[in-house]
Amino acid sequence: PRHIDWSPLMAEKGGYKHFMLKEIFEQPRAVQDTITGRLLEEQGDVRLEEMKLSDGELRGIGRICIVACGTSWHSALVGKFLMEEHCRIPVEVDIASEFRYRNPVIDSKTLLLVISQSGETADTLAALREAKARGAMTAAICNVVDSSIAREAHGVLYTHAGPEIGVASTKAFVTQLVALYLFTIRLGRAVGTIDCERGRAMISGLLKVPGLLEQALETNEQVERIARRYMNARDFLYLGRGMNYPIALEGALKLKEISYIHAEGYPAGEMKHGPIALIDENMPVVVLVPKNATYEKVLSNMEEVIARGGRVIAIYSAGDEAIAKKAEVTLEVPTGDEELAPIILSVPLQLLAYHVAVLKGTDVDQPRNLAKSVTVE
Amino acid sequence: PRHIDWSPLMAEKGGYKHFMLKEIFEQPRAVQDTITGRLLEEQGDVRLEEMKLSDGELRGIGRICIVACGTSWHSALVGKFLMEEHCRIPVEVDIASEFRYRNPVIDSKTLLLVISQSGETADTLAALREAKARGAMTAAICNVVDSSIAREAHGVLYTHAGPEIGVASTKAFVTQLVALYLFTIRLGRAVGTIDCERGRAMISGLLKVPGLLEQALETNEQVERIARRYMNARDFLYLGRGMNYPIALEGALKLKEISYIHAEGYPAGEMKHGPIALIDENMPVVVLVPKNATYEKVLSNMEEVIARGGRVIAIYSAGDEAIAKKAEVTLEVPTGDEELAPIILSVPLQLLAYHVAVLKGTDVDQPRNLAKSVTVE
Repeated sequence: PRHIDWSPLMAEKGGYKHFMLKEIFEQPRAVQDTITGRLLEEQGDVRLEEMKLSDGELRGIGRICIVACGTSWHSALVGKFLMEEHCRIPVEVDIASEFRYRNPVIDSKTLLLVISQSGETADTLAALREAKARGAMTAAICNVVDSSIAREAHGVLYTHAGPEIGVASTKAFVTQLVALYLFTIRLGRAVGTIDCERGRAMISGLLKVPGLLEQALETNEQVERIARRYMNARDFLYLGRGMNYPIALEGALKLKEISYIHAEGYPAGEMKHGPIALIDENMPVVVLVPKNATYEKVLSNMEEVIARGGRVIAIYSAGDEAIAKKAEVTLEVPTGDEELAPIILSVPLQLLAYHVAVLKGTDVDQPRNLAKSVTVE
Repeated sequence: PRHIDWSPLMAEKGGYKHFMLKEIFEQPRAVQDTITGRLLEEQGDVRLEEMKLSDGELRGIGRICIVACGTSWHSALVGKFLMEEHCRIPVEVDIASEFRYRNPVIDSKTLLLVISQSGETADTLAALREAKARGAMTAAICNVVDSSIAREAHGVLYTHAGPEIGVASTKAFVTQLVALYLFTIRLGRAVGTIDCERGRAMISGLLKVPGLLEQALETNEQVERIARRYMNARDFLYLGRGMNYPIALEGALKLKEISYIHAEGYPAGEMKHGPIALIDENMPVVVLVPKNATYEKVLSNMEEVIARGGRVIAIYSAGDEAIAKKAEVTLEVPTGDEELAPIILSVPLQLLAYHVAVLKGTDVDQPRNLAKSVTVE
């Protein structure tokens, strides 16, 4: 009989070589699960009862502080963008280990929103407790049901990503982005900055995300070829602007975490204030350049990098003919609504980190020095 | 007759090999010039008439946005810390190229404070104009008198650093920190969160800074030896917490700019959320660990790095016997008042970048790809 090399662990991986790859491919479903049952399409609104924030309470928010660590901090940065744009409430984002040792300016009109996949991140939990003690309203975005943070926050918005085993977060991150988008709609509807029509349009865009993620996953083989080409680079830069700047940070963090390559994310417009000195012919630079209001600006930043010898990997919106000729390597993804592009653009960056790590032979699901959930300070 | 190799340019450098080194050594005087004539020691207050903000106007500030690029953005991050701590007003810091393309939440109770050495930084100027158009109060911290930003802001606080020629900013940066400290005292006195006694104590700490900077400059030879030891490293990390996190960012930026080594700054508490995966026996990690409220936390972060084989260069407060034994290399500086330590700690980081660059033979005063003042977008 033919020997079947199929360990119980393999079975759990559903045929994928690593949990991380399985989880990357689960993202369309994870996003679908996170939106299912929450949309009020007719009313252009969403239902988030577990957050326990009435319209009156939402209207009383004077300022929002989002506190998180690592990958969750990156989703928070996207959330700031969404909420300020749509709800006209100032949003501050802080790193939990920094926030808790400041003397933060917080009062009863501040909503303290914490984000943690595990719901057990020690610094984030401490920040939540500190804010509660100072009288802030609190809410949490968590993936693990009934975790410490989910229990201690006044309200909670669960991402329905399912269990995430790979230490480098993927599906938890994109569902956090979706959760923040849902909360933005709810908040904007409550405070009156998003009307029914706009709410419907936002929901309609969101409903397209699972399908767009499926299409983005089709770049897998192409991304593997890119990984093969650049796997020996010692350093990488990742550039984005606006809502895609945090995605550049997240792409760089993924590469750092699992391939141990020194990757750094930057807002593209900051390059000329220092980091561009690093650029030479050995430096791959991943540029996120989807079609949006700052497209021309990013293009110009990209050209500065090329002019200085940098090897640009441009990730751009499907259908953009102009850009395909400009960079050393280009990768087309269907980006959908401008504000949902960060979700879609996450996929090729996750795949890039994954394939580089596999090619280098590192322990993808259990990278050195890292724990899945940081329950110590 | 003996030939004297003394070009006019050398003369301007006052005997120093590079403008950057000259400017680093000018810092005690630059700081002195920035505080001279502004202190009201008896009243525990400062005089900043050019900012054109009355006590009534200062009391009307609901929120402060500080907008800047590059090195000035790092000083802004320290400013946030100072103002929130002492004045209990929420402060948001944004990168100019990001701020101007957001749809920022700004109203007539927002003070938009911009920081720019040259006063001509294109993105910062555009951000200022945008905020003015939206009805914000505006003020600028500039070094170049009568520059565009100084003219267009409602009020201005000049740093008196004198002309800065080296592309990598040094004395302009530390005088920005001093200016932010002065403004914090003024604001706190006006809104009533700083009383006369506290104001006097803050001024008294500030008056010690020029002397402490002189002492910090005495580490020059020791820093050169450190530079020699690590000059061939491909990557560096810089860690700090709280007010010293932006100094870690600035130290990393200096090294990037003039030595082209990929250096990155991190808040020390974030290491375990990803970047610690980078740590191996080839990675020098500069840790800022002065005596302050988070000293023990930074020490523990430092020990995590050491446990994973990282080569720690610890910069610590004079008199701290315990730490000297722990790291591979230690450097003692007199840090003074906790809140003024960021100013003093800047010096060894500037010197480290300088000596590494000189040893590598790069063009220190005119690094590749960079301009002194970024007057294009």
